[in-house]
This record gives sequence, C-alpha cells and structure tokens, in this order.
Amino acid sequence: MKVQNPNFETRVRDSFARQAFMDKLGVRLVDVSVGSVEMELDYNPDLCQQHGYFHGGVIGTMADNAGGYAAFTLMNAEDSILTVEYKINLMAPGNGDKLVAIGRVKKPGRTLTICEVDVWIEKDGQQKLCATALCTLMTMKGHSDEQSKK
Amino acid sequence: MKVQNPNFETRVRDSFARQAFMDKLGVRLVDVSVGSVEMELDYNPDLCQQHGYFHGGVIGTMADNAGGYAAFTLMNAEDSILTVEYKINLMAPGNGDKLVAIGRVKKPGRTLTICEVDVWIEKDGQQKLCATALCTLMTMKGHSDEQSKK
Amino acid sequence: MKVQNPNFETRVRDSFARQAFMDKLGVRLVDVSVGSVEMELDYNPDLCQQHGYFHGGVIGTMADNAGGYAAFTLMNAEDSILTVEYKINLMAPGNGDKLVAIGRVKKPGRTLTICEVDVWIEKDGQQKLCATALCTLMTMKGHSDEQSKK
Amino acid sequence: MKVQNPNFETRVRDSFARQAFMDKLGVRLVDVSVGSVEMELDYNPDLCQQHGYFHGGVIGTMADNAGGYAAFTLMNAEDSILTVEYKINLMAPGNGDKLVAIGRVKKPGRTLTICEVDVWIEKDGQQKLCATALCTLMTMKGHSDEQSKK
Repeated sequence: MKVQNPNFETRVRDSFARQAFMDKLGVRLVDVSVGSVEMELDYNPDLCQQHGYFHGGVIGTMADNAGGYAAFTLMNAEDSILTVEYKINLMAPGNGDKLVAIGRVKKPGRTLTICEVDVWIEKDGQQKLCATALCTLMTMKGHSDEQSKK
Repeated sequence: MKVQNPNFETRVRDSFARQAFMDKLGVRLVDVSVGSVEMELDYNPDLCQQHGYFHGGVIGTMADNAGGYAAFTLMNAEDSILTVEYKINLMAPGNGDKLVAIGRVKKPGRTLTICEVDVWIEKDGQQKLCATALCTLMTMKGHSDEQSKK
Repeated sequence: MKVQNPNFETRVRDSFARQAFMDKLGVRLVDVSVGSVEMELDYNPDLCQQHGYFHGGVIGTMADNAGGYAAFTLMNAEDSILTVEYKINLMAPGNGDKLVAIGRVKKPGRTLTICEVDVWIEKDGQQKLCATALCTLMTMKGHSDEQSKK
Repeated sequence: MKVQNPNFETRVRDSFARQAFMDKLGVRLVDVSVGSVEMELDYNPDLCQQHGYFHGGVIGTMADNAGGYAAFTLMNAEDSILTVEYKINLMAPGNGDKLVAIGRVKKPGRTLTICEVDVWIEKDGQQKLCATALCTLMTMKGHSDEQSKK
C-alpha cells in the first residue's frame, strides 16, 4: 500500500483528537501504521448494556472508527474520508476489562477503500474475538479533514 | 405480527432503562408498538465527530438499538434478544438538532428476526434520511432480559 | 426522484438484454419504472440447490441485479452503474414456482445510490418474502453502459 | 477448530454434487479442509454481464457457496447448514479466465457460524482480489443435508 502523505500518523492523531465522542467514550488510539490502526477502550459501567457488558453500540463505534482511520492513513493531505457503510457481526458478548479494535485496509482505491476490522474483548489478560466488520469508505477529494463545519 | 407478551411495552422500557450507555448518550424511547420502536436523541457537542455533526458511532448505536427493541416487542417474557449482525448505510451527515431512529420488524421468526431501521436527522424542523440499517437478531430462549450478569 | 434520461426504460431493457447470464438463468424484466424495477424467474430444476429449491446464488443474483437496474433508471445516458456491495438476508427457502424481485432506490446520489430489494417466492399463487437486500451502487461517470469490453 | 465428523470431506463433496445450479455454472470444488474450502470456475461467455466479464451474480454465488461449505466442514453428520445472510464487496471487475473462491470459518458456533470469503479473478496467471464477503450461517440441528425436498 502506498502512503500519499508522509505525515499520516500526525494527521490521523489530530483528526482523532477532534472527535469529541471518542473522548467521551475514552477510546485511545494506540497504534497508527500504513493501512492499519489499533484502538483500545477500558471497561466503564457507563458504556454498558443491561447485563453489564460493553454495549453493542460501543463495539460498533470502535469498528466504524478503526475502519475509517485505517483508510485515512493512505489519504492525501487535501482529502478526507467518509464511512459509506459497514456490516458488523457481533460474535461474543463484550464481557471483559478492555476492548481492542484493529482496522486494516483490505483494498485501497481512488474513490472507495475497503477495510476489515476485528474487535477483541480482553478479560484477565485473555483476548477473545468479539466482533468483525467489513467497511466501505469514500475519499472526499479536496475536502481536508481540518475544514470546520459549514 | 403476533405479540407473545401483552406487557411488551413495559418490558421494552424496563430493559432500555437498564442500558447505562443509552442514558449516557441521552437517547429517549419515544414509541413502543408491536414490531416497531422509535427513539430520539438531541444534539450535544459531546456526541460529535470532527466537523461538529453527530458521530457515526452514535447513529450506528441508535440503529442497532432500534432494531433490537423492535424485535424484542415480539418476544416471550422468558426470552431475550441478541444482535447477531447488522449492516448500515450512512447516507447523509448527522448535521442537525435531533436524530430520530425508527426500527421495524421485517420478518419475525422463532430463532431469527430481521429488522429494518431508518435514522433521520432533523434540522430546523425538516427531516432528512441519514442512515438505513438491516439487522439480524437472535432470540435467546429461556434467557430473560432481566437476568443479571453471570 | 429525478429522471436524467427520458429513455431510461429502453436503456435498462437494452442493458439487461446484453447480460448473457440473465438469459442463461431465464430472468425476465417485467417492469421498469422511475427508481424501481421488477424481475421474475420461473422454477427450473437446473437453478436448484440440494433440496430442489431455488439456489441462494440465484436469489442473490436477482437481488443484485434488481438493485442495480433500479439505480440505473435514474442515470444519465453517458453514465453506467457498478455494484459496490450488497448485504442480503435469506428469510425463507426458495420453495416455489417463481421468484419475483423488486428493487427500489432508497436514496439517489451523485456518486452513490442506495437501493432496497425484496425477493418473493410464489407457490400456488401465494407470495412469501424470501430475501431482502440493501445495496450500494456507484455511478460510473462518462462510462456508458453500451461501451464494449476493453 | 473441532471436526465433528471425520468424513467431512465426503459429506461436503456429496452435498455439493447434489446442487444442480453449481453444475450448471461449472463450479469445481478443488479443496475441502477443516473450516475451509476452495472453488474454481472457468470463464464462459454464458456467465457474463454486458461487458463480457463474469457476472456479479456468479461471483456472489461462489462467495455464498464457499462460505456455506466452509461452515459445513465442521458440522455433525445429522446437521446441515443454512445461509442466514451475507454481505459482499465487489472490488474489481471479473475480467479474467478463472474465478477462485476461498471460504474460511472465522468463528464457529453451536447455532451460528461466521465465515469470510475472498474471491480472486485470475488473468494470464495473475490473481487479483475481486470480492470479499462476510457470511452468517445457521446450523440446522437434526436436518441432515441428505434429506430430500419435503
């Protein structure tokens, strides 16, 4: 995969830092590589569903975000990224201490980029596959991510 | 569609009230009907992405939840519901004052129930289709929603 | 929904007629409207899986095609359409005499168009919902459908 | 992954041989392993869309089938498998001499099994990723695949 912008890590981290909702959830961006990112989120009762596990919406949010930023690592400085759609399979309850989401570009493209994301639930140091997603992202040519709300 | 439990509305509302994450987001369950629910969420800068619009994760969370509770309206008192998977298309930015999600059962089933969800973004009193989702839910026979975390 | 090309029906029918695979299966294009198409396929043992029902691949093919041509009804004469992705839920076995697929544009767009498709199985004059799909199509600007293989 | 039936390969090949539609298309089952299958299909103008490439319906059929049989390798002799749903991204045109589909179980389960499928298009000896799918399969307990149409 070809990097369009050597400062991709800074750009991804800056964009992530501007997402108030990620801050509210407490998601941390732990790794940013070419075509791949990794995020983590510690357990917090506020993020739970009725059985005290991580809420599916939190798992979905991490999957969507990890897919989006994986694609964003390959973008030009003038371009930004938009989630077109994703499909997620929830395969085990979010019963644990920490969620770890790893997004990877499966197929880069000029207009559309396809990413895969795995979300793991960690409990007592053991990781279990919790969810997997397949995402379609669109490059917004000439709409830099830094542009403010119109 | 056949209602298995005449107290379905109370059961849905009780389950929803036990979801800490929905409370944290501020989602309101405005309507509970046979095979259908409607939820709303007012704008809040904490729920936003980098451009000040509702974050895709928030929109996805509402879609997942509205699909799940639509299916839950048809369940027996002894059964609960689990999201197997969903696919969501994000069709317009969450640029507005309020999100409205309407989930409907498309095909009820003994083991699996298929739901459709539309999410609307409201701005200055005008609604625009923001996202649409297709969800697969599984009935957890004999696992009532009221059971606590094991 | 706005029609870009008054001759859309002719264009859809001509394109459909050029798809050898549709002819091999025996699919008929029964209706072409603005943002919507309807297709039918009669039972044939060659199109079956191991239990003598319509094969899932046949149902998926009709869903993909009906979604694509629904979007194609809204295109300019110079543009063609490409399936980006779709998700399909198979909800009842293809046990019957005829499949009927109805594709509808849910959200038209300059680059991407989102369509919904329902596939019905007809047996002894009764129709049953067999599958439902949610599809993302991309407009290929300046690539007319009539262009031959490069 | 645990094999429930030591004769899984024979069972998969027998079931595949009973699918008239696979025979009509000319799909070959080239490899059957624990939790994984591989299929191939040679180019044939009958299987094409309007530009002379493999039709998307053919690609989707192979993806659906490869996912289903990957899951089927892990089933008991008394059980069969049903496709609940799948999502497929078409990433490159089917422009080549041969399609190769590889299905793999991502998460086995008692009721539901999740599979991933990659479909490659081969041209002049070079393979290119053509499509990727994420599939949900359901175990039909006590419904052996050998049972005839009811």
